[in-house]
Amino acid sequence: MWDRFLRACRGEARDTTPVWFMRQAGRYMAEYRAIREHHTLLEICREPDLATEVTLQPVRAFDVDAAILFADILLPLEPMGAPFQFAKGEGPVFDHPVRTAKDVEALRPVDPHESLAHVLTAVKQIRAELDGKTPLIGFAGAPFTLASYLIEGGKSTNYVHTKRMMYDAPELFATLLGKLAEVVRLYLLAQIEAGAQAVQLFDSWVGSLYPADYERHILPHVRHILSGLPSDRVPVIHFGTGTAMLLELQRAAGGTVIGVDWRTPLDFARARLGPDVPLQGNLESLLLNAPRDLLRQRVQDVLDRAGPSPAHIFNLGHGILPDTNPDAVKFTADVVHELGAR
Amino acid sequence: MWDRFLRACRGEARDTTPVWFMRQAGRYMAEYRAIREHHTLLEICREPDLATEVTLQPVRAFDVDAAILFADILLPLEPMGAPFQFAKGEGPVFDHPVRTAKDVEALRPVDPHESLAHVLTAVKQIRAELDGKTPLIGFAGAPFTLASYLIEGGKSTNYVHTKRMMYDAPELFATLLGKLAEVVRLYLLAQIEAGAQAVQLFDSWVGSLYPADYERHILPHVRHILSGLPSDRVPVIHFGTGTAMLLELQRAAGGTVIGVDWRTPLDFARARLGPDVPLQGNLESLLLNAPRDLLRQRVQDVLDRAGPSPAHIFNLGHGILPDTNPDAVKFTADVVHELGAR
Repeated sequence: MWDRFLRACRGEARDTTPVWFMRQAGRYMAEYRAIREHHTLLEICREPDLATEVTLQPVRAFDVDAAILFADILLPLEPMGAPFQFAKGEGPVFDHPVRTAKDVEALRPVDPHESLAHVLTAVKQIRAELDGKTPLIGFAGAPFTLASYLIEGGKSTNYVHTKRMMYDAPELFATLLGKLAEVVRLYLLAQIEAGAQAVQLFDSWVGSLYPADYERHILPHVRHILSGLPSDRVPVIHFGTGTAMLLELQRAAGGTVIGVDWRTPLDFARARLGPDVPLQGNLESLLLNAPRDLLRQRVQDVLDRAGPSPAHIFNLGHGILPDTNPDAVKFTADVVHELGAR
Repeated sequence: MWDRFLRACRGEARDTTPVWFMRQAGRYMAEYRAIREHHTLLEICREPDLATEVTLQPVRAFDVDAAILFADILLPLEPMGAPFQFAKGEGPVFDHPVRTAKDVEALRPVDPHESLAHVLTAVKQIRAELDGKTPLIGFAGAPFTLASYLIEGGKSTNYVHTKRMMYDAPELFATLLGKLAEVVRLYLLAQIEAGAQAVQLFDSWVGSLYPADYERHILPHVRHILSGLPSDRVPVIHFGTGTAMLLELQRAAGGTVIGVDWRTPLDFARARLGPDVPLQGNLESLLLNAPRDLLRQRVQDVLDRAGPSPAHIFNLGHGILPDTNPDAVKFTADVVHELGAR
């Protein structure tokens, strides 16, 4: 059933539970590492042929129900005027953290058809290669998550500078998030125009926030993005980690599907959001390398907690980790299809 | 009212809400930095006179309702046979991560009266110096949190090795946590004998776990510790971060007071735990440096969500960060006392 994933996003009947994996293309696959021997991560993102190849690798290897564009959430930041590098073992490092009014002012709007044309070319190529057999998910990072990288200058533990700007200079913070939101909105729209059949908004670090802070400082910008997308025809997955206390607010901000991390049982999310809101998630990624009987039992646990509603897309609670055994990914996709069948 | 803190721990009437701050002794205070110029963190922990002095610094500077022993949660690990250093800017680094059956077997039981006598001496000295005017809180790290440092060899993002042992070798993991739990139990008992009038168990990283994993693999060991303490006469605060989905299980594991981090509104915790369970928390630490009107408003928000029950101890949602303005700590303690008065 080629559209099992799209049907579940709409809460429509399907033969079994659809499954895909966040970061399903990546270092855990030998095919990916072979390409990485000759190209950096950013080269793969910027070269449509490579991005296409890497996006298709897990679709060829496993029975997944969706492909997800291979890209990095930080890609739109460079054309905004915030270049970065991936430092060995450290994640992204920005040349200049964005902390002052002048820094925020200097960030430029982005026309994705110009500055991110390589991504849109990749989307078109991937759609052509998938040939209607598997739907393609586009994606982007959400404003808070992007802002945290910009303000901290890279990854962060406590988001000290980000929260300081939010509390001390709320108008500046709002200006920054507004700029990011508009770039993200245009970027997702362009991906949809190019052929993405669903999109996911990754608000990966939003779980570090007190709910009232999310509501005041973040939600309006997320809503700007999500209300500007044609979600009546293209499902929008709204995902964050550590979001047990934010689920209703995320739902209020918009999106078709709410993605839930591994720490929030899906029955809790169902109880908070109601039976009709499609949920995505949420197996602990580290279970992929666990003994198979335990892995199988925990796949069943996720399905049980999602309940009988068709509105469930199986996924991990966060991305696949680099030393994951690819056989376990194949096994998990197959077990989901077996146990989710109705 | 000298026993405001202890009364709130027991849910008894008091004149106003008591307040103390996790990591209230530390780098944000000039008095502490003056001592750190001549001594390492571990030297301060190991020298009772220094630990006493540093413990008393915030009690002298601010109107806090409790002192907390200055120590490090990792102290009991060295006498168990797991030495570590604090690497510059990296946190603790263990000489040999604990990952095999042989590693776990090699860990020794600890008699705190011998190997941790310096801590007990500090407790006695601090009690003498406080002279009945302010109660003293002792503390220890909880088994999962300690195990994560041992297994990863330091701080961790995804707890890959820790969870791998938990899933792949659950009996070995249980042996390790059992050894840690017994050391922690004896250590807390010894602190109580030496004069600690309350103790806090820090399970700082337990919020990274799926609730069913906590219930199966962690809870029994925490219960071993907490059921072995005289909590009828010495309140026990049970704290973790990211615990929205773990509150009931933490309560089931034991403790007088449940400590809640900044992301879980206290009214949610009250609804899950009932009106009579004393709660501790939970101001976002970064608000300490925010404009005073916002800080005041958010202190009120915490008090409002804790509700009219006397069973609330005001605290942050995690520790004070190094670049916090000490004046804000003083301001916050005073505002809590003002707004919490009844």
